[in-house]
Order: sequence, then C-alpha cells, then structure tokens
Amino acid sequence: MRTVNIILKKRRGEALSYREIEHLITGFTRGDIPDYQMAAWAMAVYFRGMSGEETADLTELMQKSGDEIDLSSVDGIKVDKHSTGGVGDKTTLVLAPLVAAAGVPVAKMSGRGLGHTGGTLDKLESFSRFSVDMTREAFIDQVNRIGVAIVGQTENLTPADKQLYALRDVTATVDSIPLIASSVMSKKLAAGADVIVLDVKVGSGAFMKTEAEAFRLARTMVEIGNRLNRKTIAVVSDMNQPLGQAVGNALEVREAIDTLKGDGPEDVTELCLELASHMLVAAGKGDSRKQARQHVQRLMKSGKALEKLKELVRAQGGDDREVDEPDRLPQAPLKIDVRADQDGVVDSVDAEQIGMAAMSLGAGRETKGDVIDLAVGIVLHKKIGDAVHKGEPVATIHANDASKAKRAVDMVSKAVQLTDPSQQVTIPSLIYGVVD
Amino acid sequence: MRTVNIILKKRRGEALSYREIEHLITGFTRGDIPDYQMAAWAMAVYFRGMSGEETADLTELMQKSGDEIDLSSVDGIKVDKHSTGGVGDKTTLVLAPLVAAAGVPVAKMSGRGLGHTGGTLDKLESFSRFSVDMTREAFIDQVNRIGVAIVGQTENLTPADKQLYALRDVTATVDSIPLIASSVMSKKLAAGADVIVLDVKVGSGAFMKTEAEAFRLARTMVEIGNRLNRKTIAVVSDMNQPLGQAVGNALEVREAIDTLKGDGPEDVTELCLELASHMLVAAGKGDSRKQARQHVQRLMKSGKALEKLKELVRAQGGDDREVDEPDRLPQAPLKIDVRADQDGVVDSVDAEQIGMAAMSLGAGRETKGDVIDLAVGIVLHKKIGDAVHKGEPVATIHANDASKAKRAVDMVSKAVQLTDPSQQVTIPSLIYGVVD
Repeated sequence: MRTVNIILKKRRGEALSYREIEHLITGFTRGDIPDYQMAAWAMAVYFRGMSGEETADLTELMQKSGDEIDLSSVDGIKVDKHSTGGVGDKTTLVLAPLVAAAGVPVAKMSGRGLGHTGGTLDKLESFSRFSVDMTREAFIDQVNRIGVAIVGQTENLTPADKQLYALRDVTATVDSIPLIASSVMSKKLAAGADVIVLDVKVGSGAFMKTEAEAFRLARTMVEIGNRLNRKTIAVVSDMNQPLGQAVGNALEVREAIDTLKGDGPEDVTELCLELASHMLVAAGKGDSRKQARQHVQRLMKSGKALEKLKELVRAQGGDDREVDEPDRLPQAPLKIDVRADQDGVVDSVDAEQIGMAAMSLGAGRETKGDVIDLAVGIVLHKKIGDAVHKGEPVATIHANDASKAKRAVDMVSKAVQLTDPSQQVTIPSLIYGVVD
Repeated sequence: MRTVNIILKKRRGEALSYREIEHLITGFTRGDIPDYQMAAWAMAVYFRGMSGEETADLTELMQKSGDEIDLSSVDGIKVDKHSTGGVGDKTTLVLAPLVAAAGVPVAKMSGRGLGHTGGTLDKLESFSRFSVDMTREAFIDQVNRIGVAIVGQTENLTPADKQLYALRDVTATVDSIPLIASSVMSKKLAAGADVIVLDVKVGSGAFMKTEAEAFRLARTMVEIGNRLNRKTIAVVSDMNQPLGQAVGNALEVREAIDTLKGDGPEDVTELCLELASHMLVAAGKGDSRKQARQHVQRLMKSGKALEKLKELVRAQGGDDREVDEPDRLPQAPLKIDVRADQDGVVDSVDAEQIGMAAMSLGAGRETKGDVIDLAVGIVLHKKIGDAVHKGEPVATIHANDASKAKRAVDMVSKAVQLTDPSQQVTIPSLIYGVVD
C-alpha cells in the first residue's frame, strides 16, 4: 500500500477503505508516515470530505491509538458530556454534580487547553487545594462512592488525534467537519462512557458560525457514535453572545454555584436543564425528558445538587466552604464598571471580543506554558434585548492590573452594541435543535 | 507573516502576494518552513489553482533560488527548447544541431531524469566517449566556436524547484497546471536563453491526456514567459502514439541522424521543421516561418545539419565516425520481430505501453541509481493508419536478454492494436496548435 496513492485517491474524492485509513493512522502514529504526507491528505480531506463510514473508521482508529478507559467497574450507565466550546460555557461545572445527584454516574476526564478562559480543570482549581490528579483506581473508586469525579486527561489518550491535531493546527486544516468530528469523538469514545451528550455551539462566538455547519457537525458526530455503538445525542445551542453573565474561571464557578441552587442566569439554567434531561433519559433515569427535567429542578431547589458539588470538592481535596461562601474564591482587587454611553437596547454582545478581553486580563492561556489568573474576568449585566440607561453598568471588569483593566473596558464597551430604544431587537434562540 | 495564514488564504481560493510566495519559497529552501506546510499549500494549490501573476511570481522565485546561467557572452539570440515528455521524443537531438547550423546559438543544459528511456544526455552518450561535463567557460566557449553545446544541468540550478518537486512527488500534488508550468519555466529561465520554444505533448502517452489540459498548460507557460520578459512559444503536439519509429537511446540517435539527413520518419521530420521554424523566426533568422522552414530543409539536404552534429560530437570528445556509420553505435545482440496475427490496419499504438516495454528492456531508469542499456529498445514499423498483413513485422525488439525480449514482444503486440481492413481509422493530427 503506497501512501501517495492513498492521498491521490482522497484527492480524487473517492472514499478510503478501513485498511487504507489504518495504514495512514498507524503509520503516522508510529512515525513511518511523514508529516508532509498526512498534511497533504488532511488538505485533500478538507476539500473532498469523508463518507460516514470513513469518518467512523478514522475515529475508531484514533480512539484505539492509545489507552482506553475501562469504566465497566462503575455501576450504571455512564454518561459523558462535551461542548464544542464557547465563551462563558460553565455547563460542565453544573451538569457533573447535577446529574450525579440524580444517580447518573459521571466519570469525567477533562482538559485544560488554550482559550479565552481555562478549561473545566482550571475552573475547578478555583477551589483551594482542589486536585485533578488521581490514579485510575482512585478515580473509579470515587465515582462508585459519590457518583462523580473530574480528573485530568491521561497522557496517552488518543495519541493519533493529538499528533494529527497538532499538524492540522499549522497546516490550515483544522476546520474540516469530518476531522473535527472524529477528533472530538475519538477522545469521548476512548474515555469510556456509554452515552455521549454533545453541546454543539453555533454563532459569532463559536467555531461553527452558521446553523447549517453546526447541524452538519452535530449529525456527523451522532453518526459516528451510532456507527461505533455508543448512544450519542447532540444539542445545537447559541453562541452569538456569551453564555450567562460570567467569563473567567472563579467567576464562572460562582455562576455555576448559583445555577446549582436554582438562582443562575436564565440561559445557563435552561441549557443545563436541556442537557441534563437528555443525559438522564439516555442513562435510564426517568421515562421522559419532561420528567427528567422536573427531577433535576427539584434537585436544585432541595439543595441536593449543590450538596453534590460540595461532596465532589471535598473528595478531590478542595475546601467545600467555598461552595457555601463563594466570596472565599479567588477575587480580583480591581472591579471596574463598563457603563452605557447612551440610552438603548443591547443589540449584540460580541462573544469573541468578550473572550479576547478575558484573555487579555489573564483568564486564559495563549500557549501551553501560560499561567492563568483564576480571579480575573468579566461579568455582563446586560444581554441581548435588555434595555439600558445612559451611565448604567453593562458589565464589570475584574482585574489585577489597572492598564489591563483599561484595555478590557475598551474591548468590552466595543463588544456590547446598543441600538435606539425604538428599534426592534431579535433575541437569538438558546436551543436550535437536537440531533439523535 | 504566519505560514499557516498563507496556506489558509490559498485554501480559500485567494491569490497570494509576491511577498507571501517569497516567504514560502525562501523559507522552504532555507529549511525554515517545514515540508508539511509546503505539502498542505501544494494540495490547496491543486484544488484552488493560481492566478497568472502568482504563477509567474512562483516561477521567478524558484528561478532565482540558485545559480542562473549568464549567456550574455554568447553572441546572438539564444534559443532553448523543452518538451513536456513523451515516448520516442528525439527532437532535441535533431533540433540542436539543426538550428545551430542555421546560425542560432544553442547553449543547452539537459537532464537525465527517470523515464522509459534515458534523457537527451544519455542518448548522446551513445556516441563513444561523448562527454556532457564541462566548465561554464568551456561551455560558453564551445557555443561561441561551433554554435552548439549540450551539457548536464549544474547541481545548483533552481534548488527550490528540485525540493518542491520531490515533495510534490510523494504528496500527490504533481499534476497541477500552475505547479508544472512554474517548475518547467523556472529551469528554462535560470538556464538563460532569450527565447523558449516549448513542445507540449498531448495524448494517451503524455502527462496531459486531453487537448484542453495541454492548451491550458501551454498558455500558462507562455504567460509566465511573457510576464517575465522571455519570448515563449508553445507548440501542442500529438503523443497518442510514439513519435517516430525508434524508442531507446542509441536507436533514437540513429533516427535523429536520419532526420538530420532528411530521411527521417514523416512525423519526426514534420515536428522538427515546425519547432525549428519557430526557433529561427524568434531568433531573428528568417522573416517568416515558411522561409525559415525552407532554410532548415535546405540544411538537411545539403548535409550541413548533419555536419553540425558531427562538429558537436567531436567538440564534446565523441567519435564522429559514428554519425556517418551508425552501425558503430551500441547494438543489441537480439533482434526479434513482433508480427501481426491478422490482416488489418493499425488502429492504435499505446505509447505508454511501448514506453513500458522499452523500460522493461533496460532502456530507462526507474530510480536514480539505475544503469541504462543504451543499445536496447523498440523500432516500430507500423504507425496508426498503416495497413499490415498477417505475419508481417509491426515492430522489432532490440534486446540483450532473451526473457526480457519475450516479455517486450508480448507488451508490444498488445500495444499495437489492429482493426479490420474495412474499418475507417482516424489518424491523429501531429500538431494541434501553437500558443504564443
């Protein structure tokens, strides 16, 4: 099997066989196939796409390229949740304890990654001494004991995906639906859950800018799951403005705590109820989505959801008093309001810009070695459709440095666009649809 | 300037600026830009193409990536000729002495390359002791003295093209018109001639299979020449069957000798007259193509063309008696006829297959280190449209090895297809057109 002929076949738009994809992936992972051939193949895939079968084959081969997590010793149907990423997305912080409180075991491996804020692991480290490192045995044991554990990804999960992603990143081949879908799904499959619930973001602040693209990605990932016998559900949700009000690590933890108490922002609460109800039904808890939804709402009201977060924090060495008293979480010394310069209605909140502002305050990592400032970030007081008066604060900047704060104020005031109060403003839907 | 953004720009179908192409080519040649980024760019070029300006910019940057030959000390308008390659193409062997005899200086750098037979240099080495190595000074001096010299390409001519071609070869990005055109033209431009005459082959035995593709390649190369101020003319000629009768190194030299005497096969003679007349007019020798054509025909008849070949062979250390007595050239011990198994008319002669047969006899190189057998090859006695009787030889195999000969007989008899004598056979045109 000659690699150049496989590239040629893909370039011509033909579907590759399992054996051909295996030749590429195993050869690449072993170092037998050079980067330049994989790069040419990836660019051909960008232009020609991949069939459903090819995409599933690629996913399976990447899934099996390294360690796979065996969750069989955890009782019950294990559910994992993944978001394609957006600004202010703290749903994992809410959903993990919430569905665990409902009796669905959550054995979650999470990443740090680069981005406007840290990843779920970084956010959880806002709790003093919270540890995300534990042995495989301790991880399983904790899930069996309290129903939830969130740990760092093992080094050797889907090495083929890691290697391919690093190559795509420098060869302008990231934004190919089958390559994105197989990358996400290979990691989820290797992480061992029985059910995968995906939150596919769409809008100006998301990787997928149009509904058509987002649904295409959602369908592709669900098809992979179906082909590889893992129940998969994708919710397509809005990212035309940040999710909720808080953008920044400890700030998002506070908002997650509020949401678990039933006092969270409307959009965060609604999205979490939507995702949680899918997770519960898929895990066999509750006969209908409606029933499941009511169940988790009761867990919020009764304090049981919040109690599960406290158990999680305690179990992983953190200080659970910080859950009850969030003022103990890291706080930035400077809090500067961004005020409206006119009366009006919020017409748009550029999520990308808000993310960049959070990044510029130090909330995220640009490169692997960067240290995150957990305290800093932005709290939005107004969202699309809200009326504001001149001088009223539309957001508050939480900063550790006056000059960074000043820049963030500028960025945020540009990101929040007001329109004349007489104008009609369209509020984007939160949920565009579900693919299963 | 970030390389990944340049790749992205091309992937989107936008034209790159001179600075961007310069970044790629100089970075790649220096080793600063890795192969995988160039491979991704080349695949994006395959799908998106390049504008005329981009193609010329790429050509110029590759041309200037290494040594350039300065022919300014050679008097007159220097003309170079290049063929995109086909089976039985011995035109350079004819044209170099022919136009030199007409007073047009030919300072030719030639290659060996891989293929069904050797390159021009290998063919010339059929003359005993013929040397293709000489200093730059000796080369120029010989052109000034006798009007013609044919030498090996200097090591450091267009290194960027060499490097990029090697990469394209293993990443399925060879067959892109702008990349082929810029590769050919960068070498021709660096070789220093004032006028470039291109012979673009089209047909089953050529790289370009359709007239549309061949004309697109011809137009692209002529446009590059025009943009870079080098007079360029492209003739699109047939390669649906081998050119002439001989395929093989010394066998082709014999046919070239015949052609220079005016006794060559009709198609070789016609194509040489066509190309020579373009070369003469472009070099300012003769007011019209018709006049130029008559002039070179006279040179053939008078023996002056052949005399120039003898001068060339002598000047480069060869034995010029072999021109007058071609039986002295390398000869294979086995000569086996391929006979018709029915009465009929030749309907097709698969040039690719004939080439493969010559290759299998040892006439060409599959990899760089292969040693060529100069004596072996095939002589076709029948071409498309010729009538044959059952048992009549359609070709003769010249071989050094009985088992190889047997295989070649099989291949050639399959390659020469006969049809019922009553059937109408379409004889392909020799010249499809001229682009200038």
